[in-house]
Amino acid sequence: MSETVKYFLDESKIPKQWYNLVADLPAPPSAVLHPGTHAPVTPGDLEPLFPMSLIQQEVTREREVEIPEPVREIYRQWRPSPLFRARRLEKALDTPARIYYKYEGVSPAGSHKPNTAVPQAFYNKEAGIKKIATETGAGQWGSSLAFAGALFGIDVQVFMVRVSYDQKPYRRALMETYGARCVASPSNETQSGRDILAKNPQHPGSLGIAISEAVEVAAQRDDTNYALGSVLNHVLLHQTVVGLEAMEQMAMADDYPDILVACTGGGSNFGGLVFPFLGAQLRGGKKVRVVAVEPAACPSLTRGKFAYDFGDTAHLTPLTKMHTLGSTFTPPGFHSGGLRYHGMAPLVSHVKDLGLIEAVAYHQTGCFSAGVQFARAEGILPAPEANHAIRGAIDEALKCKAEGVSRSILFNLCGHGHFDMQAYMDYNAGKLVDQKLDEGELAMALAGLPSVRG
Amino acid sequence: MSETVKYFLDESKIPKQWYNLVADLPAPPSAVLHPGTHAPVTPGDLEPLFPMSLIQQEVTREREVEIPEPVREIYRQWRPSPLFRARRLEKALDTPARIYYKYEGVSPAGSHKPNTAVPQAFYNKEAGIKKIATETGAGQWGSSLAFAGALFGIDVQVFMVRVSYDQKPYRRALMETYGARCVASPSNETQSGRDILAKNPQHPGSLGIAISEAVEVAAQRDDTNYALGSVLNHVLLHQTVVGLEAMEQMAMADDYPDILVACTGGGSNFGGLVFPFLGAQLRGGKKVRVVAVEPAACPSLTRGKFAYDFGDTAHLTPLTKMHTLGSTFTPPGFHSGGLRYHGMAPLVSHVKDLGLIEAVAYHQTGCFSAGVQFARAEGILPAPEANHAIRGAIDEALKCKAEGVSRSILFNLCGHGHFDMQAYMDYNAGKLVDQKLDEGELAMALAGLPSVRG
Repeated sequence: MSETVKYFLDESKIPKQWYNLVADLPAPPSAVLHPGTHAPVTPGDLEPLFPMSLIQQEVTREREVEIPEPVREIYRQWRPSPLFRARRLEKALDTPARIYYKYEGVSPAGSHKPNTAVPQAFYNKEAGIKKIATETGAGQWGSSLAFAGALFGIDVQVFMVRVSYDQKPYRRALMETYGARCVASPSNETQSGRDILAKNPQHPGSLGIAISEAVEVAAQRDDTNYALGSVLNHVLLHQTVVGLEAMEQMAMADDYPDILVACTGGGSNFGGLVFPFLGAQLRGGKKVRVVAVEPAACPSLTRGKFAYDFGDTAHLTPLTKMHTLGSTFTPPGFHSGGLRYHGMAPLVSHVKDLGLIEAVAYHQTGCFSAGVQFARAEGILPAPEANHAIRGAIDEALKCKAEGVSRSILFNLCGHGHFDMQAYMDYNAGKLVDQKLDEGELAMALAGLPSVRG
Repeated sequence: MSETVKYFLDESKIPKQWYNLVADLPAPPSAVLHPGTHAPVTPGDLEPLFPMSLIQQEVTREREVEIPEPVREIYRQWRPSPLFRARRLEKALDTPARIYYKYEGVSPAGSHKPNTAVPQAFYNKEAGIKKIATETGAGQWGSSLAFAGALFGIDVQVFMVRVSYDQKPYRRALMETYGARCVASPSNETQSGRDILAKNPQHPGSLGIAISEAVEVAAQRDDTNYALGSVLNHVLLHQTVVGLEAMEQMAMADDYPDILVACTGGGSNFGGLVFPFLGAQLRGGKKVRVVAVEPAACPSLTRGKFAYDFGDTAHLTPLTKMHTLGSTFTPPGFHSGGLRYHGMAPLVSHVKDLGLIEAVAYHQTGCFSAGVQFARAEGILPAPEANHAIRGAIDEALKCKAEGVSRSILFNLCGHGHFDMQAYMDYNAGKLVDQKLDEGELAMALAGLPSVRG
């Protein structure tokens, strides 16, 4: 047996500030545009949806943003999260690579999402908001916001993509147990939903549609706001607690990553791990290779266009410049619901455009095979999303073996897979298949991108 | 918001010895008897099933048993587990009580069971064993042994009570992902199973039957052993890491429990938390009130007889003196599968008989109501078994409120409920009912106890 190596930070080491990568970039990301006028949005434009404190975080260029003490106090329930050296996996792979992983599945909701759900609920509570509307795909974000809402006494309404609502009743039960109200999207509760149901009463839904519904609900009432679990700058900002802690923990290990790996859906667990390291590099520190791993069936970074696009289907959101497959694109129904979004966080898209990161796309069966190998070696059963990061990390470790070099690889294990057992059942039974994206639909979705000059 | 208070021990504080309560008891527990001869069993009688190191732990009267370093190294993955002050729950209850909970859901399998699965796998590996057969009800034990087997390269075969096998495919998928083979019990793979299926091909199974099958498989081959997840002395011994850590953590909190609460099925999470505190009391330390909470539908401590009985249905196991409902008793199908056993650990039964602990029985809807209140306040969704402990702790806290006194209450939150969402769905939908036990069947099972003089 190889030994377990856990780097555990004292809770006094929970970061006091979030880190804002924008302060260290050679050029800021492109402006966010108003969906109607195509003029840069003003804070006032966003006020019907978000509290002013979050709008300020969305646009700030300050390097550090203070974490409010009540948020740090809740973080203390599960933070600092552990960072492990994957000695047992290294042995199974017979690799000279040094593999580390940061484990975010220790949060009450089982993923990294509470890192931003808690501050978002806090700032909304501070602003006197009574209710937050949001969307969820696989349910990790919805259950995290439901958890945060319960702590702060805020009502949470979750528009859950209908296909997930039907197929993942247990995620829904978790949200409802926390006290949230969960609605299958498209629903009859919004105009966006009714419009879609009028054309197709059996519509399976999509994240883009669910976002439209939640935004519509939030825009209608002064005491109701909207919250997003990824993509936006302030969400990625909150997630930097992951990378900031990891930097301290790698120092404890007397090591520094040569390669960082994280999966990308909207980009928040990726940005959370990677941005503090990229910032250190930009300020003259050690260069690190960064690999974003995305699903081959929803490949915004590797197949998408870097262009202005809407965040939702009904085009209620502002336009942001991002790697996108087009807001009308519907990915096939593979098992990593958290990675099924047509766009990529503008900030992640921007650092990709600047050449600071790489991206690769993997099919799901190879990712599950990596996840099962990881579970048997390390004991933790990963979320399907996290399996993409594991596949990427294992492939880098196998390259080290082939080349006979020892590199340090750090990846983000963003959540456990205890709510995703149907996917593992299908994989174990040999029923999981690699779904191809519809090339015709992709071409059409890309052709339909709004014509906006960036 | 009240603050989160987490008492986190450095990993250097993982206990180096397990604690053996027998050393401090005024009288040892009654002898274990051979099922055929009714003479006290010898170590040799147990050798077909267990490695000699575990047999020695089963009978030792030494106060401390060294934890092997390879076991401590694996413990380090999740131990020391956190101990929390439940400030948010206290506020929700408006109680002057100080409520603490030790949280064992942080293990890879999500419960306290790996605390004993890992050393059991270790000692079997050391003894050259290639395969372990075991039983599981709800699946917490089976998945924990599957996890431990994967780490040590030991094949694991799990006889899973058929009703659970059919109703809990996700627990099964977890075991299979770890590489274990899971069989619905009663099965055609053993004589015990075939005998039962011959009478009733649709038999729903029971823990007692599944134990018979696993014991039968283990007894047949030299390279195959048996493992039990609760009840036996060595299992409770391994679980004392929970209480030993909790004592250190209560000292960090500058407090000491007036009341200890834990749920009881076979008795291992209860003994794990409680025994180190009871031992301190027996050695002249502070007296602590101890409350065992059991399901009203399977009430071995409150309704059972303290008598010699078999641990299994086919009467292949030795006879132990314990609180029992009779080995033929089948409890109704309530949702805490981990608490559906006809007997109670002999050591827990003995301390109950000595007057060192109390026991109460609760119906499941009241326990789920407590669990949901806990989830909304503390963010952690508990296993149905753990909801019994929460119900007990909340009731003690409400007594404090009624009496206007502040007592310190520590309970064991032995696992998370992420694999038990069907139960929460039923509860949320108002479909959960309190199942009564069959009084006629209980009377018959008690009347059928073997006549052995204790």
